[in-house]
Amino acid sequence: MLQTFTVYVEDKPGVLNRVASSFRRRGFNIESLAVGHTHKPGISRMTIVVEADGFTARTIEANLYKMVNVLLVENITYDDKVIRELALIKVRTSPENRLEIFQTVEVYRSKIVDVTTESVMVEVTGPTAKIDSLVEVFEPYGIIEMVRTGVIGMGRGPYAPTISPEFVEAVVPEEAVAK
Amino acid sequence: MLQTFTVYVEDKPGVLNRVASSFRRRGFNIESLAVGHTHKPGISRMTIVVEADGFTARTIEANLYKMVNVLLVENITYDDKVIRELALIKVRTSPENRLEIFQTVEVYRSKIVDVTTESVMVEVTGPTAKIDSLVEVFEPYGIIEMVRTGVIGMGRGPYAPTISPEFVEAVVPEEAVAK
Repeated sequence: MLQTFTVYVEDKPGVLNRVASSFRRRGFNIESLAVGHTHKPGISRMTIVVEADGFTARTIEANLYKMVNVLLVENITYDDKVIRELALIKVRTSPENRLEIFQTVEVYRSKIVDVTTESVMVEVTGPTAKIDSLVEVFEPYGIIEMVRTGVIGMGRGPYAPTISPEFVEAVVPEEAVAK
Repeated sequence: MLQTFTVYVEDKPGVLNRVASSFRRRGFNIESLAVGHTHKPGISRMTIVVEADGFTARTIEANLYKMVNVLLVENITYDDKVIRELALIKVRTSPENRLEIFQTVEVYRSKIVDVTTESVMVEVTGPTAKIDSLVEVFEPYGIIEMVRTGVIGMGRGPYAPTISPEFVEAVVPEEAVAK
């Protein structure tokens, strides 16, 4: 099944490389990966989705923790959470189907961000399944190009792990700090 | 300055690792990276943002092309394009500031996706600067956590490069196909 991990890392060159290598060595194909800044300077948060059983998920978690610059790993697969992905989809239009396409955009609560006489670019946000479904609806018109961000996830409720400077100092090995 | 690359890759284990390593070896810190499926099975599209001058951008492009499984590289920095990023932001609320926060959410055309008595989770989409600005506005209330996808970009207008099976076959070296 698909396992979703939230990984807090120090924002240093080589972190992404190390994380990607560790998945590679074990032969996992990452289904989705997104990296972005958090509100704490110097700390990034990755969301990684991998096809794995429960045992393998545990080994992934343990191996991520072994890496320098990895601060916190959470498997949020079974948590009550919000999962979202963003896509831009460019669809071919004709005078005959233009209105139909505009209506589909509305039904999916998506947004037109660029228009020409022969195409529209649509911005859509939602769980992966919603975006997949819109892609399916657009396919017969002709998709010119598509780009997706990969998924991000966040647990519902008011709580979150604390990633304070004290936490970072306590987690990163001394040799790494010295470098 | 920030350079934005669109990179089409074959969806194989190790591709992300190879791309990340090549940036690592040259000492670049990737400012933003997003990977997602395209509408063509087996082909993923990365959007990579790196701080680099024009000369360095050219070397990045050349080096990406040298990698097996890299099909097409475009530097879209100077193109007329749509750039978007998605973020989930969890903000602390109190009975006193709740209405104010709700109004901010509306002003930014963002969306509340989870509510508790002490927090809201906000989904926001836009160019990086818009999201940064919302983060700044939320900061005084107390941001509990935030996750961002990294940016994706797409050129305006009706055209896009053709990534047909023939194109893929013509680009991937024979030894790689044989494996």
